[in-house]
Amino acid sequence: MVDNLWILISALLVFIMHLGFSTLEVGLTRQKNTINVLFKNMFIISAGLITYALIGFNTMYPGDSFNNILSIGGPIGFVDASKNLTHAYADYTYYSDFLFQAMFAATGATIVSGAVAERVKLSSFLLFATLLVGLAYPIAGAWKWGGGFLDDMGFYDFAGSSVVHAFGGFAALACAWLLGPRADKYTNGKINTLSGHSMPLVAIGVFLLWFGWYGFNGGSVLSADPAAVSLVFVTTSLSAACGILSAMFISWFMNKKPDYIITANGALAGLVGITAGADVVSIWAACVIGLISGILLVFGSNLIERILKIDDPVGAITVHGICGIWGTVAVGIFSAEHSVLTQLIGTTIISVFAFTFSLLVFGAIKKTLGIRINGKLEQQGLDLLEHGYEAYPDFKTSS
Amino acid sequence: MVDNLWILISALLVFIMHLGFSTLEVGLTRQKNTINVLFKNMFIISAGLITYALIGFNTMYPGDSFNNILSIGGPIGFVDASKNLTHAYADYTYYSDFLFQAMFAATGATIVSGAVAERVKLSSFLLFATLLVGLAYPIAGAWKWGGGFLDDMGFYDFAGSSVVHAFGGFAALACAWLLGPRADKYTNGKINTLSGHSMPLVAIGVFLLWFGWYGFNGGSVLSADPAAVSLVFVTTSLSAACGILSAMFISWFMNKKPDYIITANGALAGLVGITAGADVVSIWAACVIGLISGILLVFGSNLIERILKIDDPVGAITVHGICGIWGTVAVGIFSAEHSVLTQLIGTTIISVFAFTFSLLVFGAIKKTLGIRINGKLEQQGLDLLEHGYEAYPDFKTSS
Amino acid sequence: MVDNLWILISALLVFIMHLGFSTLEVGLTRQKNTINVLFKNMFIISAGLITYALIGFNTMYPGDSFNNILSIGGPIGFVDASKNLTHAYADYTYYSDFLFQAMFAATGATIVSGAVAERVKLSSFLLFATLLVGLAYPIAGAWKWGGGFLDDMGFYDFAGSSVVHAFGGFAALACAWLLGPRADKYTNGKINTLSGHSMPLVAIGVFLLWFGWYGFNGGSVLSADPAAVSLVFVTTSLSAACGILSAMFISWFMNKKPDYIITANGALAGLVGITAGADVVSIWAACVIGLISGILLVFGSNLIERILKIDDPVGAITVHGICGIWGTVAVGIFSAEHSVLTQLIGTTIISVFAFTFSLLVFGAIKKTLGIRINGKLEQQGLDLLEHGYEAYPDFKTSS
Repeated sequence: MVDNLWILISALLVFIMHLGFSTLEVGLTRQKNTINVLFKNMFIISAGLITYALIGFNTMYPGDSFNNILSIGGPIGFVDASKNLTHAYADYTYYSDFLFQAMFAATGATIVSGAVAERVKLSSFLLFATLLVGLAYPIAGAWKWGGGFLDDMGFYDFAGSSVVHAFGGFAALACAWLLGPRADKYTNGKINTLSGHSMPLVAIGVFLLWFGWYGFNGGSVLSADPAAVSLVFVTTSLSAACGILSAMFISWFMNKKPDYIITANGALAGLVGITAGADVVSIWAACVIGLISGILLVFGSNLIERILKIDDPVGAITVHGICGIWGTVAVGIFSAEHSVLTQLIGTTIISVFAFTFSLLVFGAIKKTLGIRINGKLEQQGLDLLEHGYEAYPDFKTSS
Repeated sequence: MVDNLWILISALLVFIMHLGFSTLEVGLTRQKNTINVLFKNMFIISAGLITYALIGFNTMYPGDSFNNILSIGGPIGFVDASKNLTHAYADYTYYSDFLFQAMFAATGATIVSGAVAERVKLSSFLLFATLLVGLAYPIAGAWKWGGGFLDDMGFYDFAGSSVVHAFGGFAALACAWLLGPRADKYTNGKINTLSGHSMPLVAIGVFLLWFGWYGFNGGSVLSADPAAVSLVFVTTSLSAACGILSAMFISWFMNKKPDYIITANGALAGLVGITAGADVVSIWAACVIGLISGILLVFGSNLIERILKIDDPVGAITVHGICGIWGTVAVGIFSAEHSVLTQLIGTTIISVFAFTFSLLVFGAIKKTLGIRINGKLEQQGLDLLEHGYEAYPDFKTSS
Repeated sequence: MVDNLWILISALLVFIMHLGFSTLEVGLTRQKNTINVLFKNMFIISAGLITYALIGFNTMYPGDSFNNILSIGGPIGFVDASKNLTHAYADYTYYSDFLFQAMFAATGATIVSGAVAERVKLSSFLLFATLLVGLAYPIAGAWKWGGGFLDDMGFYDFAGSSVVHAFGGFAALACAWLLGPRADKYTNGKINTLSGHSMPLVAIGVFLLWFGWYGFNGGSVLSADPAAVSLVFVTTSLSAACGILSAMFISWFMNKKPDYIITANGALAGLVGITAGADVVSIWAACVIGLISGILLVFGSNLIERILKIDDPVGAITVHGICGIWGTVAVGIFSAEHSVLTQLIGTTIISVFAFTFSLLVFGAIKKTLGIRINGKLEQQGLDLLEHGYEAYPDFKTSS
């Protein structure tokens, strides 16, 4: 009964992460695209829940008859709803299990949303997001959490540094690459900063994501076991705190100024980093994982933005992709029971799959429906032309 | 012990809905009335808690001696506080019961707040809200949840599609009608859109309301029973998700543009719709209830705004009133154990009562104290003239 | 198992208070210093968690060998991590205990942050905040909660009206006094209102703080005991509601206008006031405590701002310092088992210690590194010059 309650509370904590993703993405992008960003994120939670009920959950958890690679499932509770309701899976119900996993599922598409912001064609993105969350995510998830071949080979990913975050991050990489940078990002060999429009919304986003992460990681214990959940809470907290610290000092040292966006993103880097091993590493290992996550954030962002010249308005590829891989490998380093090599193989397979799936599907959409808005629309902003009104239509300043 | 904890956690989830109502209403109204909106909502939670302690709780739950129609109660725990503290009502305490219900109580007045925004006289609204939440709500609530005549006749309303939402929605209808539209709403036979001032605040509002709704519906199980609470969580989630979907597609089809406000309100419509039967309908029925709620939202808003010419800045009458009735009737349709007719009678009685009470009381206040601010105040905004400062006094734009 | 879960959920409720503090402080200060405020608050949660793990927790809870006055502890779980993990302290784990207390610890520094906003030198504040949260707070906390001399003499402070709030408030007083007022605050004998820049952010802050306070007070029961936690929830709610009411009416009467900031702060005043005795006073005593807290808020703010001429942009000294002392003394008044005199002595010792520590340490930093930004920086704002960009770089108004 306590276990079930904790899974449900965790589900609603993961739910509120979607508000965190929304305000973070809105805060880091330009005002003229605010409604578009909010619209995408509202759609994703809806599509995520519905597709996961229709196909995702039973694809990701196919049961004993699973061939360990691919098995597309049907709707939840299709055969016998009353049985599902009373059936106790572990110490929580079938429906609790479904909802907790469904809230996770939508996260993958949300990560992509940030990377393609301000230039993606809305209908094409909605289509892609639905396929990613409804099909690709549960297929890859089944390999580990559904008892598939990655699970068989001893790969470990507690709450999804790979299954959720690297998956989302590398899907984002493929999409941002296919889409190309925003119009004003790279001009005459210069890299321009296209500033977002509200740092308080960034703060709200980061704090709500961190808040929800206690359900993301804490609920992944799949019970309310005091020792396990409290360890997970502490490793999660300390890794986030250390991610802030290292991101803050490195950016301060490199840019001579204490940068808020990098510092705040340091918390998210630390959270992604600890997600794979929050239950199996010591609290001091969690600190090291967080510190390195913060460092990777700074250098990873430079790699993506300056060397690869891929435009990622919110830094999603670095935070979720790079730190997701790091967190997965770190389990091999800091937990004696897991192998660095296996971890590396597992995270690579998931990342390559997410990247390839996105390249093919988003590429196919590019060829057919198109994925990019036209230049005039991009310049004037999506809100007014695509949605019909602006995000702050009545906002006036006193002066 | 788990039951009690869940009731308390549900109480605090319902509490945070008041922040959701505040930011939603603020986001959808004009900047010049922001402080006024925030002020009303801060007052309501205060007045709601205090009046519910003084009179509301014991009016709504009169106990065995109830005559099934009307019985005004006294303050909580008046006779013997220590007894109340240790007395276990069901599997949770008297105080847990009180607080959970008290958080519900304030909701009725909050719904009205949105419909009368931007033109209501502050002191008159505070008086009316206090009477609505302290008197009318517990009297009507007692008919169902206090074991009164609606309960006796087999009327079913799990978490309040009627008792809370239709009640609030039809009180809002009476008040908005008495008050008349905002000055610039209907001019020369034209219907003007008076745009709100912040879509991110709308997003924060909708997500927080949805978040809190898990306590609103989940806590209404009145225990942490795993099967019941997890079913409620899933029906609630899917109805909200389907409300988004249908509201999105219909408004997109009708207006040729994907409308964010309608889409986001679709979630709330779905949530109101599922509230009456979240524990007794199947998950697929929940999807249908949500889909129809989203449809009703679009057509209901047109009915209120364009045909009845009632000005409701936040769409509260449609979301809470119309979808509240729909959700109550839907229990009769989708649950074999309940009758459509009984449901229709019950929701009509509650809605008519809320409408009539508001008409009489708000009408009496209109005759005596007045309910509407003068035209100059309305044009210049309530914040500066009524409260003494603006909501963004130091806000400057970079350009 | 339920107890442990409740402590962990309480920890995450206290965590989200840091978002509340952030948005409240941001909303009440000027736009040009927004990033600086957000930066300080992001640092504090990081430094608070890390220093509490390294030294704070074992300083505050030294165990049986404590000399009752001073005993500096080492890092948590240093000797034998696996033992700590499985060791059940009361009915929750060592790590749950640590995290709940760690979330409290950062609060002290956050309170100071508000009082020194808009003129403090960033690096000096970060240094001071680290020393305050890592050293001074656990030393003083040990006197009561670690079983030290204040505990021995029968001093009672349930959840920290003194240990957390008066501590933070009087540290804030010393710092604000050393720092001096903002440049434009007192000019030619006139007291100027330096308006903040966003009232919706103030509302978000107050509601989130109240929300988190259910964990702050409710978790301080240190178990999920139904009778105790539900009483604490109700006293906490009613005191906040009554704080709103009295602050609202008094400011309305005095200024002839209903003031939103004072009304909203009334909730916080009531919450600070009830914190010391939430578990030992009756619900009607809680109402009185809240009413008086709201009154003290209005007069206390005038005392600080107009008579002492200390500039406190967010009113932290009054809300946390003055109402913290009041709440502590109120335990002696409203609970027969506690003495007013003992309560007064205890809260005085803690307040004087916080004030003196801050005076000495912040004074020493003033002499060496400096604590105040230069006048040009203050005039132009910290964001652009110190952090490199503004908080709303892309914000434009429609007109």
